[in-house]
Amino acid sequence: VKGAVLAVGTELLLGDVINSNAAWLGGRLAAAGVEVVASAAVGDDLQRLVAEIRRHLDEADVLVLSGGLGPTVDDLTRDAVALACQAPLERQPALEDRLRAVFAPYQATMPDAVLRQADVPRGAQVLDNPAGTAPGLWLEQGGKLVIALPGPPHELRAASVTVWPRLARRSGVVVTTRQVLSIGVGESTVASRVEPLLSLPEGVALSYLAGGAVVRVRFTTAGDPAVLEPLVAAVAAELGDAVWGYDADTLDGVVHALLGQAGQTVAVAESLTGGLLGAALSKRPGSSETFRGALVVYATDLKQTLAGVPGPLLEAEGAVSERTAAALAEGARDRLGADWGVGVTGVAGPTEQEGKPVGTVHVAVAGPATTQVRTLQLRGDRERVRALAVTGALDLLRRQLVAEPTVG
Amino acid sequence: VKGAVLAVGTELLLGDVINSNAAWLGGRLAAAGVEVVASAAVGDDLQRLVAEIRRHLDEADVLVLSGGLGPTVDDLTRDAVALACQAPLERQPALEDRLRAVFAPYQATMPDAVLRQADVPRGAQVLDNPAGTAPGLWLEQGGKLVIALPGPPHELRAASVTVWPRLARRSGVVVTTRQVLSIGVGESTVASRVEPLLSLPEGVALSYLAGGAVVRVRFTTAGDPAVLEPLVAAVAAELGDAVWGYDADTLDGVVHALLGQAGQTVAVAESLTGGLLGAALSKRPGSSETFRGALVVYATDLKQTLAGVPGPLLEAEGAVSERTAAALAEGARDRLGADWGVGVTGVAGPTEQEGKPVGTVHVAVAGPATTQVRTLQLRGDRERVRALAVTGALDLLRRQLVAEPTVG
Repeated sequence: VKGAVLAVGTELLLGDVINSNAAWLGGRLAAAGVEVVASAAVGDDLQRLVAEIRRHLDEADVLVLSGGLGPTVDDLTRDAVALACQAPLERQPALEDRLRAVFAPYQATMPDAVLRQADVPRGAQVLDNPAGTAPGLWLEQGGKLVIALPGPPHELRAASVTVWPRLARRSGVVVTTRQVLSIGVGESTVASRVEPLLSLPEGVALSYLAGGAVVRVRFTTAGDPAVLEPLVAAVAAELGDAVWGYDADTLDGVVHALLGQAGQTVAVAESLTGGLLGAALSKRPGSSETFRGALVVYATDLKQTLAGVPGPLLEAEGAVSERTAAALAEGARDRLGADWGVGVTGVAGPTEQEGKPVGTVHVAVAGPATTQVRTLQLRGDRERVRALAVTGALDLLRRQLVAEPTVG
Repeated sequence: VKGAVLAVGTELLLGDVINSNAAWLGGRLAAAGVEVVASAAVGDDLQRLVAEIRRHLDEADVLVLSGGLGPTVDDLTRDAVALACQAPLERQPALEDRLRAVFAPYQATMPDAVLRQADVPRGAQVLDNPAGTAPGLWLEQGGKLVIALPGPPHELRAASVTVWPRLARRSGVVVTTRQVLSIGVGESTVASRVEPLLSLPEGVALSYLAGGAVVRVRFTTAGDPAVLEPLVAAVAAELGDAVWGYDADTLDGVVHALLGQAGQTVAVAESLTGGLLGAALSKRPGSSETFRGALVVYATDLKQTLAGVPGPLLEAEGAVSERTAAALAEGARDRLGADWGVGVTGVAGPTEQEGKPVGTVHVAVAGPATTQVRTLQLRGDRERVRALAVTGALDLLRRQLVAEPTVG
């Protein structure tokens, strides 16, 4: 089964919006056994949109469109699908009623344009959109399948929940992917250590994905998933404690799981990351079980007054130092009443600070038994340094949670 | 001048990497007077890549490729450009010498594959890449222009610095864009309020961009930029205090500018956002001038012990309440020694809390004179509710900074 993704919106061509839907749809299609052979963006231009739909349907069996389903005059996806598939639009009374019900509390008279969202190409099924007003569409015609989804990413996800299992049944292919997730070892080093160990069975693909400080070693097969297990085990054994998880694991999720198993909690005191570490530790539902809170001590005096870093230490070694990171970790642990404290300080840039170059970051973890500090030299702009500092802090916490025996 | 963007890499089709280069290139091309009519991604497949280059050159005058210029066997952009443009590859001794010099410190013998980066289609100019080893290419042929740039975003930027001024001279067009940035009013309401006021001069385009709680009203012209001024003024006057900025402004940047003008500082106490508000207020270089820090009081008891929310208030009204938000704002202002305090509490989901539904968010701003509270009912998943809560808090701070006369 061949697939194509077509994102609709002039804002994508002009670069006002990054087309993240294409990647999300590509991943979902691949997992549903659809080989994505083309991905494109097209502006809000009816003629071009119709031509692109036709062009993609020449080659692909499944075309997924995102965007252009809203109420405004430049939302043309419905019209274009109707024209390209010769399936005239018909207003659906049930959808019209639903739109009126949604708008009733806000507006006495509903603009006619809003009702365009109740128009459905003949023969298409409606995909309910619990996150917004524009429903999605599923239209099968002559062996081809066109799926149109709303453009806002949370609506795209909400309106497509039923799409993926249906597509997987349709393709009849089950693609199994296994990933080993590592940190702290470069992509080419991972490859050179891993490849001599492996003899890949027929039909198994190996690939590497590097991003942030993380390298993912990935095996994919459309055959027997059992053949992947020994490969995953061999990679994990070779990479040792650089391996922090598998498959869809996230570093924050792994940390919460380790804390939860031990019945323990964490708190942080962060400077250059400004709250990003706390945000990462509160991302998951249920994180309040194991994450207590954070002190964002951006101003230097707050490192002393809020987090308890000794004034003489700040004067002697500066706000960006290993000992300050350790004192932040201990202050967070102590003052927020957690089993573990994490401290982060460093230079996010764009200019050096206290004579330390941009990218100098100290992370510390204070646990029931010891305090550990690690110094990172990170490359990149301010945003990247801050993101990598969060990753480095979470990884040190993970290592200490694994290394240090549970106390109490 | 018509342009097209073609991103190369199977990882883009599979959704492993979000194609942010397309947006960046689209923005640069538009600013250089090139109308981007098509954007696509193609896998690492020579035949498809050649076909896509030819297809785009049928319509576009300028084609910009990103990716596929590296040393590995799946880097096929050079070969594809050579085939599509019938410009055979020629190894350039100067590039070869540079590659050997770069690799000499690391490897005694350089793999032959690396030298492929010294191959240049006949007639092409080399675009220096100071951030990596793969140079870019600029090939003019039969009135068409093909530009190939390396895929890693920081290399793409570095290798293309000379491209944009050359393109602007070539197109002879200067495109001017003006944007009015508003918040709290829906896209369709903005359109219905704005459009009756405006008579668009010939050659001026009007568009709307909605994302988060923000609506951007945008005017674009390739003619006299002065005609945009009265349009911008009319929109700003109609939308009143919903307007928070213009053009490339950001909400955090506007808040920092207002604080800086008043010589004032801000601190926050946040719960459901877990640090995201602090992260937003520390995003910009120099934010330490006006942002002091944050208390992330995720656990309920910390709202009392760290931020000073009275225990009886928490018991009577709960952690998610208007008065708790106000107490958080006042606690942040007081305990972190800032002129302004912001408090945020609410239900991020996925489940309700204290009987309050997901998306209930209270934001408060404590200033030198008053404390203001606003209750938001936000729609979306946990990630979106948290992001919109940050936007809502920054907007309330902005409104109070504008409304409340500076004290002392």
